[in-house]
Amino acid sequence: MEREHISASFDVELSELRTRILAMGGKVEVMIAGSIKALVDRDTALAERIIAMDHEVNTCEVSVDEKCLELLALRQPAARDLRFITLVLKIVTDLERIGDQCANISKRVRELNEEPPLKPYIDIPRMAHATGVMLKEALDAFVRGDSDLAVKVCKDDSFVDDLNIQIQRELLTFMIEDPSTISRAMKINYISKSLERIADHATNIAEMVIFMVKGKDIRHTIA
Amino acid sequence: MEREHISASFDVELSELRTRILAMGGKVEVMIAGSIKALVDRDTALAERIIAMDHEVNTCEVSVDEKCLELLALRQPAARDLRFITLVLKIVTDLERIGDQCANISKRVRELNEEPPLKPYIDIPRMAHATGVMLKEALDAFVRGDSDLAVKVCKDDSFVDDLNIQIQRELLTFMIEDPSTISRAMKINYISKSLERIADHATNIAEMVIFMVKGKDIRHTIA
Repeated sequence: MEREHISASFDVELSELRTRILAMGGKVEVMIAGSIKALVDRDTALAERIIAMDHEVNTCEVSVDEKCLELLALRQPAARDLRFITLVLKIVTDLERIGDQCANISKRVRELNEEPPLKPYIDIPRMAHATGVMLKEALDAFVRGDSDLAVKVCKDDSFVDDLNIQIQRELLTFMIEDPSTISRAMKINYISKSLERIADHATNIAEMVIFMVKGKDIRHTIA
Repeated sequence: MEREHISASFDVELSELRTRILAMGGKVEVMIAGSIKALVDRDTALAERIIAMDHEVNTCEVSVDEKCLELLALRQPAARDLRFITLVLKIVTDLERIGDQCANISKRVRELNEEPPLKPYIDIPRMAHATGVMLKEALDAFVRGDSDLAVKVCKDDSFVDDLNIQIQRELLTFMIEDPSTISRAMKINYISKSLERIADHATNIAEMVIFMVKGKDIRHTIA
């Protein structure tokens, strides 16, 4: 009876950990969309709000890490629960670094908004949207233990990589034709690369989910 | 007696885990130095060898992760040992991603070696050296539990950041003066940014070491 009581409360704690990761994921999804909306709408106040959100995400990371250590120490989980908690320890680091990337994007946006617009943004919002979906699906795959969805996320990464290459080529053309655009083009290039890095983090999360579900490691094997 | 026997063998396993992390760290240090040597010496064969090393680092990551899970499950460590193992789980991810960065640098080097040299490299080797030292010191701090050394690593990161900004500015001048340099300058810029990312990974490791040693979290507090 006592044992069952402990298990039930452990399940509650694991479920609470899951909720915290999702809340943190929700926050960084807002940051991805917001940083690009700030770019497209030339909304510096929004960029500032995204930069400020980075602190909240950092605080989430620290508290999730502490909770994981506590559960490992007090509950001494085995098998599936152990794998779940170690996965949370790793996912939280990726989420925190996505937050950093969004803050960095927003800092470039703040600078770009002080100069005349270079061109209408078409591919960057598409890239940000695809990246946001990848992160959402990676976290859904984590919550549901859905390895098929996680495999889809890994495959979608090449779409974002291709968009990044396309954006870089287009910016190169701008810079060659008119050197006065170089400084702005480099900042947009930075934003494009940051989105690509965020997609890499989502892919890392998805790969780790597959590891958790399948119990074997497919990292570094999906092309 | 039996209990002592178990503890002694656990210590051996922890020490073996430490050795594996150091070996993996040594491998990525070789990759950092090698990828930049391949750039400076225009040595494409060396760049190819660095790219190939990335697979070895990936294999290290998978095997260290498995060992950590095994120790957590079978040994149910508490307090300091628990914190050590969870730290290893996180450090190994940073080391693997440094390996990725070095492979990416080497791919750009391979492309640059097919074009005429843009300029002699002075700041990039300095940056690579500083980054390599940061990584080495972060891992030394980890092994010795030396939080002072870890704090030094966090502070050194700004030197690498400054070098990156300086390199970017210099490349911008090249591009504005002669648009035919833009494609090469962008690749050198990519290499500079990759080194900066590697320094960020070393800083992340150092911050986590401080967490392990002090038992409290100073992440996101050092300027």
